[in-house]
Amino acid sequence: MTFTRFDRYVDRHSRNFVERLQALCRMPSVAARGTGMRAIAETVELMMQRVGIGTRSFRIGSGYPIIYGECGVDPRSFVVYGHYDVQPVGHLSEWSYGPFAATIVDGKLFARGAANSKGDLAARLAAVETYQKTFGKLPVSLRFLVDGEDGLGSPSLYRFAAEHPELLAAQGCIWDEGYKDTQERPVISLGFKGIQFLELRAHGARTDLHSKWGAIVPNPAWRLVQALATITSPKGVITIDGFSSHVAPISAEDKEALAGIELDEAGLKREFRIGGWVRSLKGPALVKEHIFGPTCTICGIQTGHTEAGVKTVLPSSALARLDFRIVPDLTPQLVLELLREHLDVRGFKDIEIIELGNAPLAKSPASSAVAQAVIGSAAEVYGVAPLVYPMDPSSGPVGAVCGASSPPTPVASFGISYAGSNPHGPDENIRVDDFLQSIKFIGRVIHRLGETKAKTSGANKLIVGREARVSGAHN
Amino acid sequence: MTFTRFDRYVDRHSRNFVERLQALCRMPSVAARGTGMRAIAETVELMMQRVGIGTRSFRIGSGYPIIYGECGVDPRSFVVYGHYDVQPVGHLSEWSYGPFAATIVDGKLFARGAANSKGDLAARLAAVETYQKTFGKLPVSLRFLVDGEDGLGSPSLYRFAAEHPELLAAQGCIWDEGYKDTQERPVISLGFKGIQFLELRAHGARTDLHSKWGAIVPNPAWRLVQALATITSPKGVITIDGFSSHVAPISAEDKEALAGIELDEAGLKREFRIGGWVRSLKGPALVKEHIFGPTCTICGIQTGHTEAGVKTVLPSSALARLDFRIVPDLTPQLVLELLREHLDVRGFKDIEIIELGNAPLAKSPASSAVAQAVIGSAAEVYGVAPLVYPMDPSSGPVGAVCGASSPPTPVASFGISYAGSNPHGPDENIRVDDFLQSIKFIGRVIHRLGETKAKTSGANKLIVGREARVSGAHN
Repeated sequence: MTFTRFDRYVDRHSRNFVERLQALCRMPSVAARGTGMRAIAETVELMMQRVGIGTRSFRIGSGYPIIYGECGVDPRSFVVYGHYDVQPVGHLSEWSYGPFAATIVDGKLFARGAANSKGDLAARLAAVETYQKTFGKLPVSLRFLVDGEDGLGSPSLYRFAAEHPELLAAQGCIWDEGYKDTQERPVISLGFKGIQFLELRAHGARTDLHSKWGAIVPNPAWRLVQALATITSPKGVITIDGFSSHVAPISAEDKEALAGIELDEAGLKREFRIGGWVRSLKGPALVKEHIFGPTCTICGIQTGHTEAGVKTVLPSSALARLDFRIVPDLTPQLVLELLREHLDVRGFKDIEIIELGNAPLAKSPASSAVAQAVIGSAAEVYGVAPLVYPMDPSSGPVGAVCGASSPPTPVASFGISYAGSNPHGPDENIRVDDFLQSIKFIGRVIHRLGETKAKTSGANKLIVGREARVSGAHN
Repeated sequence: MTFTRFDRYVDRHSRNFVERLQALCRMPSVAARGTGMRAIAETVELMMQRVGIGTRSFRIGSGYPIIYGECGVDPRSFVVYGHYDVQPVGHLSEWSYGPFAATIVDGKLFARGAANSKGDLAARLAAVETYQKTFGKLPVSLRFLVDGEDGLGSPSLYRFAAEHPELLAAQGCIWDEGYKDTQERPVISLGFKGIQFLELRAHGARTDLHSKWGAIVPNPAWRLVQALATITSPKGVITIDGFSSHVAPISAEDKEALAGIELDEAGLKREFRIGGWVRSLKGPALVKEHIFGPTCTICGIQTGHTEAGVKTVLPSSALARLDFRIVPDLTPQLVLELLREHLDVRGFKDIEIIELGNAPLAKSPASSAVAQAVIGSAAEVYGVAPLVYPMDPSSGPVGAVCGASSPPTPVASFGISYAGSNPHGPDENIRVDDFLQSIKFIGRVIHRLGETKAKTSGANKLIVGREARVSGAHN
């Protein structure tokens, strides 16, 4: 059985598929701002129905709807995760094109959400259509799960998963995070780091004061800086008391997987325009740190006056947002407790910690059917061996979806981005050719899934962290 | 000679004087934004001419004009400094009344610039009018110097002073900084701390990145935090190498002056809504720190994403604004050099330092004619001994004006604010009664200056720091 007809269908309908994606990208759907969410949810549901997916929309409380859709009648089913919301735009002035114009220039489609991840959703729907038009019915059942709260930490999804585990029962799960690296090698992930996203606040006088009071009035900005400086070393190592003792050693299997991965250091440095990596790491040590290193990232600090027009004030408050990416055996709750204790014993009890959101880590083996189908199809379509990450450095509500049944569902994740996609920054973009190639790739994944044996208990192994309290964003 | 007629004139014209002040406050004149600057300069010049001051407007380069005005023919002359520009408004939502509505509620006039320092300018002009209407001609010559760039660090004023020292030759200078403390005692200052206002910048990737890169991509926010944390101790002491050795011991005369000053600690703590002072200082130690302590205030930090809508990014850059208030024998240049060296030896050569503005310190003796006239008049009008600060904790271009001639001109500074005026924050306001009382006070100051002997060389002593390179704001 060849994919000649499948690929020809994609080529013949490429313009149509790209236009559908553009239409999707032209709908602003920033969950964090509540912009255009209703319209996009309706559109996504309609797009799913048009390719023969039977849909149901689940609205949990006042959240944005989860669009659930089933396609195929085979008892072997696979979950396909996606989301229709996008990240906030950030500073408009940093964009070369309107973030919702979906402008195509030199084969690149620029739009907030094109890479993360409307392109993936559109490609998957196009693959379902193409498969049915060329092969007939799907060889397995697909259970689409399209989230509207990726940018908010998917609170509805956690509740949905807890309330409807039967809809998530599956032999595998396909996630939507992935990209081609700077050397055009597709990156596939078999899990995700967890996340604990916190805000630290220091408080001073009731209002910003004239800075002539600087000699005697406590300055919350200094307080916050001094507290933050105890959390990492100048070299960027997390120095929270007891933190490192909770980081598990890397297993023999994971060490082997790491050995197969390399980062295009020169290409990434060029892409990011940086002179080097933290602690001058390189080679295998750099890869290991990237995939298995826990992080504590300052995502933002705001205090006092920094706008145009100089103004000498003593700030009344200061805040910092910290994003911890979590590896085995850390948990979001443990990170929070260790940080609180660490600050307290150093006299920083006055620093308030607010939880913005968290997600457990998730990690599954390369031997699963879904992983094998994805890895095999990638080699076939892209002509190179994919880089298989035992755990992706990003995070998501994978634990909610894959941990809903027991044993947990194994996951494999891939996507249509490339190294220059900049999915959380300005000028987010994808390459149109990557989008079309991905349709062909997904067709093959579906086909290979059809060769999977029916589920036998105990065959799967997924590590999923325990907590899943999420009230903010992550990914 | 009594002031009965003078005071009665002020009382009879109080409504008129207040309305003139309101008109001035209703003109937005934010130099940092360039708003309404032309209109206010013309209005101020006209107001000066109306009370018999012969004016000249000096425009230096593309700066905002300095309105210079002479009144009186006596050979003994005194400079009266003021400014017509105001600080930026800040967050409108924090204001109870429109910042340019000049609303009077419960005897308080709310406006950006009412306290700093349109109220002072209006009171001084009202006093000149009243003096001439009731006593006849002025007993001394007054040389008004009205700056339009207080909020920008007065760059034009420095050049004006260098180019026209003859216009600034005087036996004393009256500055416009001062207030009644929480116990209604007028505060008079005989000098000002210097200032060095710097911006520190750390640079990372070319754009904000997805924070999944946090394990390996250097984070400029952490870099800045770690660099800042070396500049002060957690207790708020400046720890720059060699810094403290340049802080001169306090002279016997200044120790005596300090002994006469007390801070209303309870009142200020209530006003600021703070639980205590830095390092739990109190009493004479607190006063000493306030007046003679050098400061390093974080005026603002900005990096990454801190707005509504959580967003996990690895920032591309980070900046902090630091405001050093300088005491003898520190200089702005020395602070800059010490900080650069301090960061360099700690491996922070990558932290960029940008000069936003500076001003030398200025400090003159209590024995000068102008100081004696101001101190004597205050006791007479306010019925309490004023608090005489040998050096004000704030800063200004005093060195430019008073250091233009040799020996330097002694300075005495007072103003119409009170402890709740909040001159750099929201709801800046003055009390109408303070404004009117100040007119009576200034009348007496002018009168006492008439008793001054003609200038004899060597009678004055002013310490003025050496540098006066200013490109940004301070006060």
